[in-house]
This record gives sequence, C-alpha cells and structure tokens, in this order.
Amino acid sequence: MFQVNENYLKLPGSYLFSTIAKKVKSYTEANPHRKVIRLGIGDVTQPLAPAIIKAMHEAVDEMGDVRTFHGYAPDLGYGFLREEIAKKDYQERGCAIEADEIFISDGAKSDCGNIQEIFAADSRIAVCDPVYPVYVDSNVMAGRTGEYDEAKGIWSNVIYMPCTAENHFVPELPEERPDLIYLCVPNNPTGTTLNREQLKLWVDYANETGAVILYDAAYEAYIREEDVPHSIFEIPGARTCAIEFRSFSKNAGFTGVRLGFTVIPKDLKSSNAAVHSLWARRHGTKFNGAPYIVQKAAMAVYSDEGKAQLKEQVAYYMSNAELIYEGLKEAGYQVYGGVNAPYIWLKTPGDMTSWEFFDWLLESANVVGTPGSGFGPSGEGYFRLTAFGTRENTMEAMERIRNLKA
Amino acid sequence: MFQVNENYLKLPGSYLFSTIAKKVKSYTEANPHRKVIRLGIGDVTQPLAPAIIKAMHEAVDEMGDVRTFHGYAPDLGYGFLREEIAKKDYQERGCAIEADEIFISDGAKSDCGNIQEIFAADSRIAVCDPVYPVYVDSNVMAGRTGEYDEAKGIWSNVIYMPCTAENHFVPELPEERPDLIYLCVPNNPTGTTLNREQLKLWVDYANETGAVILYDAAYEAYIREEDVPHSIFEIPGARTCAIEFRSFSKNAGFTGVRLGFTVIPKDLKSSNAAVHSLWARRHGTKFNGAPYIVQKAAMAVYSDEGKAQLKEQVAYYMSNAELIYEGLKEAGYQVYGGVNAPYIWLKTPGDMTSWEFFDWLLESANVVGTPGSGFGPSGEGYFRLTAFGTRENTMEAMERIRNLKA
Repeated sequence: MFQVNENYLKLPGSYLFSTIAKKVKSYTEANPHRKVIRLGIGDVTQPLAPAIIKAMHEAVDEMGDVRTFHGYAPDLGYGFLREEIAKKDYQERGCAIEADEIFISDGAKSDCGNIQEIFAADSRIAVCDPVYPVYVDSNVMAGRTGEYDEAKGIWSNVIYMPCTAENHFVPELPEERPDLIYLCVPNNPTGTTLNREQLKLWVDYANETGAVILYDAAYEAYIREEDVPHSIFEIPGARTCAIEFRSFSKNAGFTGVRLGFTVIPKDLKSSNAAVHSLWARRHGTKFNGAPYIVQKAAMAVYSDEGKAQLKEQVAYYMSNAELIYEGLKEAGYQVYGGVNAPYIWLKTPGDMTSWEFFDWLLESANVVGTPGSGFGPSGEGYFRLTAFGTRENTMEAMERIRNLKA
Repeated sequence: MFQVNENYLKLPGSYLFSTIAKKVKSYTEANPHRKVIRLGIGDVTQPLAPAIIKAMHEAVDEMGDVRTFHGYAPDLGYGFLREEIAKKDYQERGCAIEADEIFISDGAKSDCGNIQEIFAADSRIAVCDPVYPVYVDSNVMAGRTGEYDEAKGIWSNVIYMPCTAENHFVPELPEERPDLIYLCVPNNPTGTTLNREQLKLWVDYANETGAVILYDAAYEAYIREEDVPHSIFEIPGARTCAIEFRSFSKNAGFTGVRLGFTVIPKDLKSSNAAVHSLWARRHGTKFNGAPYIVQKAAMAVYSDEGKAQLKEQVAYYMSNAELIYEGLKEAGYQVYGGVNAPYIWLKTPGDMTSWEFFDWLLESANVVGTPGSGFGPSGEGYFRLTAFGTRENTMEAMERIRNLKA
C-alpha cells in the first residue's frame, strides 16, 4: 500500500497561528460582548494604496480585451518588473544585482518554504532562535531535522542560534558548521536587526566555511536606522554566499494579493552546480508565474505616487510601533524591537511563560498577541505584539494594558 | 561546502517549451517577414469573460477601502469558493465531496508538481506515456525516478503506460505495482479520454492494490460525450483512492490569473496517515493562500452570467478543434483527440520523427506545434496542435497545411 512522507508526521501539533485562532475563538464565543483586539498575526489592516488600486483596475481592463489580454506569465516574472526591482531595490542602493537574478513569485512564504528543496538532502541547517517557523518546518518535511524533543522544543539536527536579551538578539557564529543559515533581518518575531558590521561577520563566515545564507528581508521597508542594511547584497562578498527573499506584503499591504521575489546571484555556486539554474528549473516545473494583474500592481509600488503613498502607510504602522513600545515601557515592561520593524518583543513579567501571558492578556485585557515560545525555545518568556493594527485599536489596546499594570 | 540537490542535475536539458521557443525565435529572426502561427503551447487567447472582469473590478475596489480590505486569505481558500465548488462541480454531479475537501491554490501546475512530496520518498510512480511532463520532472527532483536513459528517453524507476493508436490511447493496467498513478483525462497531449467503464477499472485496481490515483482533470470543461466522466469522483470507490486536480486556466481563461484546486477526500488513507491532513499542513507551511481578487473572480465562473459566457468561450475553442481535426483529415493525416479536448494529436507522415515534423511544419507552413516525443517516448512519431488560437489564425494555419499536402 502507498505510504505518506513520514517526516510530515513528526511535525508537532498544529501550526502556532491555528492554536491562537482556536483559543481566541473559544474566548469570544464564551464572552460575546467583549471587544477583542488582535495584535497577534502579522497581517496588515490598511487598504491598498490608491496608485496600486489604479494600476490593478487598468490591468483588469487589459485582461478583458483580446488585444491586451495576457495568458501565461513568464515563469520567472515579467521583464518589466524584474528590471524595476533590480534598478530600484538594488542598483540604486549600490548592490550589483541584475534583473535576471530576480525571481518573481506568489510570496516570500512560498519561497522561504520551497528553497530548501534545491539543496542536498543531508544539508545541515542553522536558524536564529526565536524565528519565523516556516524555515524549520519546511526542513522537517524534507527530513533534515532529526528527532523532536517535545520537552525542550528542539530538533536534534538543527543548529539553534539563541537570540535573547542577554546577547542583544544578535546571533553568534555557531560552533558546528551549517550548510544553510537562515537569517531573518529585521527579525520576526523580535523586531531586532543586524548592523552593517554584524552582518558582514556572517557574510565572511559563510564565504569562509562554504555555507549559504538564506536572508529573509520581508520587513526591510521598516528599517529607519542608517547603519542597518536593507539588503544583504550591500555587504561585499554576499554575491557568493547569499540568497535574499523579499515580499510586497509588508511594504505595500499585499498579504492578500500575494507577491514576493527571491534574489539568487549567478555567482552563488557549490562544487556541484550554480544555484541560480536550479531555482529557475524549480520555478519552471512547479510554478506557473505570478498573475499579470499583480505584477502590474507591483509596478505602482515603485512609481513616485505609489512610493509617497506607501511611505505614509509604513509611517502609520511605525507610529503604532512607537505607541506600543512606549506604552509597554510606561507600564513597566522590558521591551525590544519596534524601531526598525513592525514587531515589538516584550519580556513576560515574573515567571510567566509565553502561553501563560497569552492567556492572561487575552482574559484580562482582551488583547491577542503571539507567545514567543511559538517561534523557538529561546522565545520562551517573551511575547510579540504587532504594529499592523489600526491606530484606534492599537491605542485602545495600550490603554487597557497600562490600566492592568496600574 | 554546501551541496545542491543532485537529483535536479539529472534532469535532461531544457524544458520542452523553452526549446520550442528558442527554435521559433531563431526562425523568426532569420525570416522576419513570415507570419508564424503558434498552435504550440496550450495557452488561451480569448480575453476574460465580462462577468469575471466585473467581479475583479469589484474585488479590487474592496481592497482599496479599509472597511472591505482583505489581508491574508485562509491558507486552504475562502469558504465561499470552497462551498461553491463543492456544490457546483461535485454535489450537483452526484459526487459526495464536501467543501473542506477542496484546497484552493495558485494553479493545477503547482499542485501537480508539489503533491508528490507528501508521499514516501520510495513511492513507485506510473505515468501515461505520452503525458504532461510535470509529473515525471517533479518526481525526478525528488529522487524517485532512478537513472535516465538518454537514447530511449526513459527513467529506470518509472512505470510507463504507453498510450498509442495501437491501444486507442487507453493505458493498460501495469504489471509492476505502482504506489502513485498519474492519470490526465482528457489527456494532454493526446486529447483522448477514458469512459466510465475504463475509468472504473482504474479505480478498482487502485483500491485493490493500495495505490493512489493522481487525477488531473484540467481539461474537464471540454468533455462533450455523455459517457466520459468529468470527475473521477463520479466513479464509486474513488473516495478511498483518488486525488483530483482542477484548473480555472482552460475553462475560464485563467492561465495568467492563476487559480486551481485539489480535491482530497478524507477517506483517502494510508496505513500510516490520512492524506488530507498532510496536504493541509503543506498548504499551511509553504503557501499563503490565493489572492482574494482571484478567488472572487472564480465565483463569477459559477454565476449564471459567467457560465453562459464561458460556455461560448469553450465552444469557440472547440470549433477551432473541429477545424483542425477535419482539416488534418482532409489533408490525409491520421488524427486523434479534439472531440473532448482542445488538443489534436496527429501521426507524423512517413518516417518523420516528432522534431523533424516540427522543423518541417515551421519552415514550410510557418506553423508551430509541439513534438510528441517531448511528452514521453511513446509520443515519438506524433505531434500536438492546440485549439487555443484565434479562429482567424487557426483557419489560416489549416489552409497552409492543406496547401502543403496538395
């Protein structure tokens, strides 16, 4: 009889956000009159900017006319968008990245999850701890992670790089040698970053040891400090050791529109092959291009009008981040992140675990956040709030939290 | 040093359609004044139907308003669409399929390519020969196919089921036992189908031997004969042995819009797990939902207005199919398919190989088709033409081909 991929069966329980959704649902059903404010999932709340809406309407009209209809898109993305990204996101920032090194996709989550499959089955992976769960989970499915220790919440064959208040959330170079190093900067969930010097250390390390850095820069648009690189390709040497993932979800509100891209320099080579051609082959075989309408919408993100509108949108969320950061500080919490990222990371008070704090905050303030332990063992004792809510809800949530402590 | 997935390196040369594109490009560059007619790739040419365009504009407007904005879609698809599909495509046809057995995705190609990863690494696969190349290629990438014999064009660990004029393009039950059986009905590229009795044989075989049928029904909308099932779930017993892939590309012109779905009955179980939960987990980890706008557009496909418009669109393409079928017959070719499918499959004249015929047709009639050998070794000596061109181009192509033979 046929058998399933047993690696899938090793995945513990349900996905973090499903568990949260269930808890919130059961609370709201039991307490229908309470207004629950969700600062949990990193989903945006502001509508698409007018320039994007306009571009989408135009593209929809093109699809309705036989003279301008677009069928299958090129697997790797339309040339117009790849050129625009190469120019605006890279070349203008001094990064030597060409249009044909940009691969357009339906989002950074897909790419972050799928990228592992173009590497050898016995590749050793290293991840920051805590971090976005997709990196580890997709490697679990591929059988790379060994066995799960439920009590400790760790996989036997994953190199964890703890990022806690003690090391200022800066991962240290691992003692064991990884093949693939996942870095998420600005980090989800901690909202912390690496400066140029800190990132250079990683690029040098990867080049010396023959590792690949899988650099998730989904939150790049939120960087405000001068010394924090927006792309790993700002660092000399990155072309021979790094892949970068980018998203339109957080800089342009595309969470429900779906678009992202991956940058693979042609100089990234193993002893057995160039990585670029493998990813092209994957795209050609298991993906069929992102929608024309969505790729046209992305062009509006780079227009002067679009840029101005999105700058305001990011500023809106970052004002929320400040409100949360300052509000929590006032309420006596130890708080991190929130300066170059839309995430605020707090230390749970006293001996409370992440999930205890989740339950307490839901019940006493009717505010939903995300337990830090859901992002890895070193996230235990921490908690994430997001700046993606509306201003009104964010203010009300902080008011409730301040009153709790008072 | 890091290593890539060596299975990728086993894939021979470039993808079929890239080779065709290169040949056509070099011909048109050398002969800029000739009008080349492309009846090669299965891409549609008619614009999206007015009902779909209207639904898209409305959904775009919703995305531009904070009160109706939609962020992340549910990973498995919006309930409204899953309900509609379950009802209109399945329950109304007498198939016992529930909404939560429908998984919405960005297209059938992604799903057909990704599905293999939820099965055991040592699963044995069987494919019709010739067939859509994604089934074999995605299994090559996963290391299931053994070694490639360049001369014969076959993989050592794939069970090929030849479908040729000799067996009326009906695959025979294999002698070796497969775990996963890919069936594409109506078939791409031959345009042939299985009737109810023929399909029942496969369902019974799969249930008896413990195999899974991976049933690609992307061309279901083109079925015109009464005795040909539109879904494998019309056959009793399919709930315990089949997964079905569906697409909006060919019934509604979504090739550049991207939407499809996969049906996994909850009764499909291996000795180690239920398949349904694995695919849900894959979607949750490596996919982030299909765009709201596109899922709303799909709802228009099921509206009375949309159905009427799309019926006309399918009829348009099927008139092309008739033109090609009859035209080729008149010109003295042996012709197959084209009755329940938008593909016409012809035997190349004399001793011509598929690629020789490709070159000859391109040079002498300036018509592009697809060499049968690109779909598998038993496709050698055959050639595919598609009905997805415009009426004008299709007529002109047939005129040219008729004149050639005269």
